[in-house]
Amino acid sequence: MVTVNAYAARSATGGLVPTTIERRDLGPYDVLIEVKYAGICHSDIHTVRGDWGPQPYPLVPGHEIAGIVTEVGSAVTAHAVGDRVGVGCMVNSCGECANCRAGEEQYCLAGNTGTYGIVDRDGTITQGGYSTHVVVTEKFVLRIPDGLDLDVAAPLLCAGITTYSPLRHWGAGPGKKVAIVGLGGLGHMGVQLAHAMGAEVTVLSQSLKKQEDGLRLGADHYHATSDEDTFTDLAGSFDLIVNTVSASIDINAYLQLLALDGALVNVGAPAQPLPVQAFSLIMGRRSFAGSMIGGIRETQEMLDFCAEHGLGAEIEVIPASEINDAYQRVLDSDVRYRFVIDAATF
Amino acid sequence: MVTVNAYAARSATGGLVPTTIERRDLGPYDVLIEVKYAGICHSDIHTVRGDWGPQPYPLVPGHEIAGIVTEVGSAVTAHAVGDRVGVGCMVNSCGECANCRAGEEQYCLAGNTGTYGIVDRDGTITQGGYSTHVVVTEKFVLRIPDGLDLDVAAPLLCAGITTYSPLRHWGAGPGKKVAIVGLGGLGHMGVQLAHAMGAEVTVLSQSLKKQEDGLRLGADHYHATSDEDTFTDLAGSFDLIVNTVSASIDINAYLQLLALDGALVNVGAPAQPLPVQAFSLIMGRRSFAGSMIGGIRETQEMLDFCAEHGLGAEIEVIPASEINDAYQRVLDSDVRYRFVIDAATF
Repeated sequence: MVTVNAYAARSATGGLVPTTIERRDLGPYDVLIEVKYAGICHSDIHTVRGDWGPQPYPLVPGHEIAGIVTEVGSAVTAHAVGDRVGVGCMVNSCGECANCRAGEEQYCLAGNTGTYGIVDRDGTITQGGYSTHVVVTEKFVLRIPDGLDLDVAAPLLCAGITTYSPLRHWGAGPGKKVAIVGLGGLGHMGVQLAHAMGAEVTVLSQSLKKQEDGLRLGADHYHATSDEDTFTDLAGSFDLIVNTVSASIDINAYLQLLALDGALVNVGAPAQPLPVQAFSLIMGRRSFAGSMIGGIRETQEMLDFCAEHGLGAEIEVIPASEINDAYQRVLDSDVRYRFVIDAATF
Repeated sequence: MVTVNAYAARSATGGLVPTTIERRDLGPYDVLIEVKYAGICHSDIHTVRGDWGPQPYPLVPGHEIAGIVTEVGSAVTAHAVGDRVGVGCMVNSCGECANCRAGEEQYCLAGNTGTYGIVDRDGTITQGGYSTHVVVTEKFVLRIPDGLDLDVAAPLLCAGITTYSPLRHWGAGPGKKVAIVGLGGLGHMGVQLAHAMGAEVTVLSQSLKKQEDGLRLGADHYHATSDEDTFTDLAGSFDLIVNTVSASIDINAYLQLLALDGALVNVGAPAQPLPVQAFSLIMGRRSFAGSMIGGIRETQEMLDFCAEHGLGAEIEVIPASEINDAYQRVLDSDVRYRFVIDAATF
């Protein structure tokens, strides 16, 4: 066991405080990573505050991790000391179910092992990336290509793959019209990725406040959803809408924006059910669907794609001491577009 | 104009009564069909009773029509006098929009012209198949293959294509597990079609009352949805669920029955919105979708498929004088599985 610095929540209400945690000794397939940067995801905040159910405190959040390999287990072949690597939202899965065998570990039928707050396969509770070091089994460690800086790469491990996977699955590319709902941490990656895939990209945001950013990131069009005309002007337009907004939206209004065979894909889950008019789906053979991060193979593909196209998150790097302020700013939508913690400050 | 016998509703509450209506003179592309059989679809009842909005009375329902061509317009090439033909839920569309050009006339962006109660492109109100004759433009007239009797073919024009189209679109076939929710007019066709396509077919019905029929029609399994165990035993099982039930169901319970990338497709539209938990979709990249009848090309393909596989509706033939009784029996689910009116009795 090795003792390392970290920031943890001790309760749902106390905020994050500096602490130390234990990382396990390396098993034969384990990789020890010196964390360089850890992204702050909106879901970190929901989780530590207990919005999604009770948590095992103290809890170290963080599932957007970029760093350097400092030691490897005896049987590790995929990574070597000095490699630039990343870890995302999961650190293990059963490896045996149909979904794992298909490379879709995020949908592991036994439940994937989340990067923090989850009982790991050895019985311990996983602790996340707000820490100087993590130990992860090699299969769940990604290579970060040389062309990608570690700080802008960190958020790709969640925000990047969460948008990349549905864009790929539903065929974003040349000739396809794609809308991204919400221009936040996820949305600003979705716009860049869909544009790089060759799709015609529209941002649907509450206001036009971030329009300049949206167009610079690769959007062809930008519309305010607070403007009622948006929903009449764009009716029947899109092949794919990726909804990155976790708050409840008027789902039927958005379904009406889909063309024949179009899909509206939620990557977040509002707490309340969304009342769907079946008629909205039947007219135009539309789908309302969901997507959750992506598999390990696809996450690697996404990182390689970002390096090839020069994409990364737009970030604000902060020291660990500012995490609690940053959480409030995320809740206030006051960040463009992702906070990344400098792990040297843990 | 030619005056023909028909059964019409004069109001939402008065039931159907014998009457006469006018059919237009044949235009160059028109086909005059002597109706032999007209199926009774549940939606006929909803429509004439005003459940889906006010109607232009007197209204002749019927969109499951099988008959013989008795005259053709000067430019008709697809059909000839004596041909066995059918007409389904639509009799025209704009022909120019992207969806029409793609052969998906049911999703015509200008709105397809329904077989009854709709303003036709010439300004008259369409009148349906509860009549001795109909006049329809040749493109919307289907060939009924010799292998299919006209009485069992009539319901294929709605119940057949409504289930065939989503089964094809979502890839029902060998190695796929398909569930059909509801064993009524639509469901009993869905079971036969999915089985003939090579899928493993499960019926999900309220009770086991029709189990023997379901298995005879080609289902491999039959489960009662009134039994709570059904939803735990079958969790994560199906690649495709076709929901033929128009009443509200617990949609999230059914979504949980889908495997990775599975789709639950509604072919009916409950009046009330269905409260969908986004989480049900995100876990397993599931889709909740809709489908409406099918295009003309696909409807022909379905008729040919049924002839090739010896499939047809299971029917009870009635004289026109029994239509009102039959309506009540449909509402009571007291028909196995489709009423077909003998058009000689109109």
